[in-house]
Amino acid sequence: MAIVNTELKNAPLPSIKRLPIYLNMLRLMQVKGRPVVSCTHIADDLHLDPTQVRKDLAITGIIGRPKVGYQVPELIQSIEAFLGWKKANEAFLVGVGNLGSALLGYEGFAHLGLKIIAAFDSHPEKAGKTIHGREVFPLEQLPSLASRMHVHIGVLTVPASAAQSAADVLIGSGIRAIWNFTATRLDAPPDTIVENVELASSLAVLSSKLEATMKNKKKS
Amino acid sequence: MAIVNTELKNAPLPSIKRLPIYLNMLRLMQVKGRPVVSCTHIADDLHLDPTQVRKDLAITGIIGRPKVGYQVPELIQSIEAFLGWKKANEAFLVGVGNLGSALLGYEGFAHLGLKIIAAFDSHPEKAGKTIHGREVFPLEQLPSLASRMHVHIGVLTVPASAAQSAADVLIGSGIRAIWNFTATRLDAPPDTIVENVELASSLAVLSSKLEATMKNKKKS
Repeated sequence: MAIVNTELKNAPLPSIKRLPIYLNMLRLMQVKGRPVVSCTHIADDLHLDPTQVRKDLAITGIIGRPKVGYQVPELIQSIEAFLGWKKANEAFLVGVGNLGSALLGYEGFAHLGLKIIAAFDSHPEKAGKTIHGREVFPLEQLPSLASRMHVHIGVLTVPASAAQSAADVLIGSGIRAIWNFTATRLDAPPDTIVENVELASSLAVLSSKLEATMKNKKKS
Repeated sequence: MAIVNTELKNAPLPSIKRLPIYLNMLRLMQVKGRPVVSCTHIADDLHLDPTQVRKDLAITGIIGRPKVGYQVPELIQSIEAFLGWKKANEAFLVGVGNLGSALLGYEGFAHLGLKIIAAFDSHPEKAGKTIHGREVFPLEQLPSLASRMHVHIGVLTVPASAAQSAADVLIGSGIRAIWNFTATRLDAPPDTIVENVELASSLAVLSSKLEATMKNKKKS
């Protein structure tokens, strides 16, 4: 266990971000019944450098056999264990507007080790509803439910203007990690993990590139 | 126009990614009726460096007045114009499973200059349905509709196993930019813009950090 911890501290973020990409590929291989895979094969498929792939996979603690590679099921297990995706992480979702309701219905999170078990909203008229099988509670009940149910992850899908105050409720409730879908940068104490999804930033990159392409086209 | 283009080519991605964060903050300020804002104010609020903020905003072509700052509405317009968000970019969505249906219902895209005008699915039983006001067409109809409607953006929300083949249909239809919500790295020609949302990577960072925290806690 200590080894995994030490390695995680040294594990670069780009490597961690590539792990789900490998996992996705490996799961497809498993479905096709492929038993073994090499770094070179993975690297070729994903247009990456084989040495990089070997390093990325090594942070999970697995070492491939020279000239053979990795057993696919073993490699999947190693990545899942490293990411903490072997058992589902239970989470609360705050803000059942459009995006929040949408995410409650997204079954893909199960593959990512995330299980949203309840939802919260500050609008009283939303409390008591059930959305995609999850009950919606008033936001005031979050602190007591978080401690009673030992939930550590909060998925934040409120409007930008309510983001900080909702985050404060999560932090005050002992939530350790916030998955922030809002465009607001949150103020949080250093021991709270905040991961921003930045849908808006991603779309900004896409649309600014497209805007430039279209303008160049018009000029020529 | 030429100036904007030159600047975009030199604009670093991290700056582009911060623009929606500024925009979000500025829109909240506008709602509160604040007429003017300085780089220092923005930087303080977002925990950034004021010089960085000035540089980021300058890529949109705007120059603040010394000791005064920027007119809020003017700054909003400048960022929106740079990102191509003044007029909505029309887009097609491919794959109306859980995530796709969810995104069709997400009204927040309107603020990000994105308007999904139709959806497509390769499953014949889904075609003909209307989801959140958008009609679902068979995937085979995408090429003819894309050219007829001059749509340039494709939002990809199919399962990982179908990602490349659906992307091929988009690319073959003249779609210039793909917003990829799948965990699959797409093969695409260099003139196609591919922007990966990487929900899985974002969650990997969050859960691996949480996993490490929890293990350290258990040890101590």
